[in-house]
Amino acid sequence: MYVPTFDDVRNAQERIQPHIHRTPILTSSFINKLAGAELFFKCENFQKAGAFKVRGASNAVFGLDEEKAKLGVATHSSGNHALSLSYAAGRRGIPVTVVMPRTAPEAKKEAVRGYGGTIVECEPSTSSREAVFAEVVAKSGAEFVHPYNDHRVISGQATCSLELTEQVEGLNAVVAPIGGGGMVSGTCLTLSSIAPDVEIIAAEPKNADDAYRSFKAGHIIADDAPQTVADGLKVPLKDLTWHFVSNHVTDILTATEEEIIEAMRLIWQRMKIVMEPSSAVPLATILKNKEAFAGKRVGVIITGGNVDLNKLPWLPKA
Amino acid sequence: MYVPTFDDVRNAQERIQPHIHRTPILTSSFINKLAGAELFFKCENFQKAGAFKVRGASNAVFGLDEEKAKLGVATHSSGNHALSLSYAAGRRGIPVTVVMPRTAPEAKKEAVRGYGGTIVECEPSTSSREAVFAEVVAKSGAEFVHPYNDHRVISGQATCSLELTEQVEGLNAVVAPIGGGGMVSGTCLTLSSIAPDVEIIAAEPKNADDAYRSFKAGHIIADDAPQTVADGLKVPLKDLTWHFVSNHVTDILTATEEEIIEAMRLIWQRMKIVMEPSSAVPLATILKNKEAFAGKRVGVIITGGNVDLNKLPWLPKA
Repeated sequence: MYVPTFDDVRNAQERIQPHIHRTPILTSSFINKLAGAELFFKCENFQKAGAFKVRGASNAVFGLDEEKAKLGVATHSSGNHALSLSYAAGRRGIPVTVVMPRTAPEAKKEAVRGYGGTIVECEPSTSSREAVFAEVVAKSGAEFVHPYNDHRVISGQATCSLELTEQVEGLNAVVAPIGGGGMVSGTCLTLSSIAPDVEIIAAEPKNADDAYRSFKAGHIIADDAPQTVADGLKVPLKDLTWHFVSNHVTDILTATEEEIIEAMRLIWQRMKIVMEPSSAVPLATILKNKEAFAGKRVGVIITGGNVDLNKLPWLPKA
Repeated sequence: MYVPTFDDVRNAQERIQPHIHRTPILTSSFINKLAGAELFFKCENFQKAGAFKVRGASNAVFGLDEEKAKLGVATHSSGNHALSLSYAAGRRGIPVTVVMPRTAPEAKKEAVRGYGGTIVECEPSTSSREAVFAEVVAKSGAEFVHPYNDHRVISGQATCSLELTEQVEGLNAVVAPIGGGGMVSGTCLTLSSIAPDVEIIAAEPKNADDAYRSFKAGHIIADDAPQTVADGLKVPLKDLTWHFVSNHVTDILTATEEEIIEAMRLIWQRMKIVMEPSSAVPLATILKNKEAFAGKRVGVIITGGNVDLNKLPWLPKA
């Protein structure tokens, strides 16, 4: 297991800079008053392909040597990593194959195809996915880019908090949502290197609190198919992300489904931005634990904005 | 009728600068490709109180002398001007009264009260509104700040395109929605003074095309209660806004309800911002008249973001 260093982050930043946005920081005086803290929202919903995942995907794709690159890249994902890898491969002009359950939403499949990705469908089970994926890689020789348990991906995600520290001075804490731990690991990698006094808080849905329980237990606990509105956060930690989480995270806080939806709606209403339920988990945990953040300057990662505008979680089910 | 000059705009910019945001410009490579033009969206949905109207309201409120200011300000509006005037008066710490039909949405009333405004209800008719408003002003001596037909308000709105020209070089055109004409008049005032070669396009719902018909006829035509999803654009031109529209607007383009809703959804989906139906009319007209904008650098005013998240126009009626 190769553990990336801050040099890898600097290299990633240089490598991906032509392909991504330096996303803005937004603030809301209303939400600051409500929270009793100064919150700085890092808006990766405005990122290329609509999510921070394009940082890691671009770092992996543009870091391949010519020979490797010709064979293309592959992954399994039905979410933002699939979109992001397709975007990055499209920019480099190399093939990309995404293994997706045949039951995945048609809109997600269309979006991957829109970026030039090829979809290979599997049954909605881990065994089918693994079998189909192995076949894809065996046939094509494509490079596997894991959605989060990959040092190239983590180094790419780490550029997000590097930008954040350049954009906001004197941060006391950074709060990021945690699923598989790619964003949180990148945050740990950057902050432990250049701003070791900044607290790193991971925010997780109570309904999918495997990282929280892992953190308390001291070893990885993986859940089978948790159910939460924050659909980007259902996946478990893996060895490399666990390394960062267990060594550098200050605390993990959780929020209920209702708290997540309320925080999401508050951000839409007051900050006028479209973002995903997963991205609302940090604010939900901050509003629930005000004493922990009182008076602090807090970076909050808005991880993405790819949401089905016909199915907003505060509306009656269509 | 006093016609404001560019000196008034410079004074307004200095006066209101501590109370408003310098809003960002966003772009979308997807929408640019679709339009065949380079679009620069001036995001007044991120403005204080959620709309550009806070510029004009702040200029009026902070331009009052001490004696006048003590008596407060008043207006009639059930929209963004009511919110904006309440915000500005609250910042200055002076009373503000808003006359609103008793049938106005409770959420709007709450928002005005949230900014410290006092609401006086009238019946939902022009005669009742005028009678009630006259009484309010007679009793309080409050200064009337009209939503758009007021030189202080127009000078304030004019600061929006002043910022736009500072933020984007080499614009060929600016497209702004038109209702009563406050934003468009401000755009005319600024651009005719400092960038007279930039085309000024007003965008209007076909269902409320009184400005379009006025422009073609050469005199003001006012409609009685037009129906459109772009609820900020139902009001007619008045003498001062007609002065600017008739003298400086290059053209007025219209869009259907379906085209407005489609453009709104496209902006939410691709640009990840929450904005009002009224703000989607410019993009709707651009996509409908691509040949007129082909290859040009076009400023697009996103006028506001105060929208009922339970009643998005592409969803089935709740």
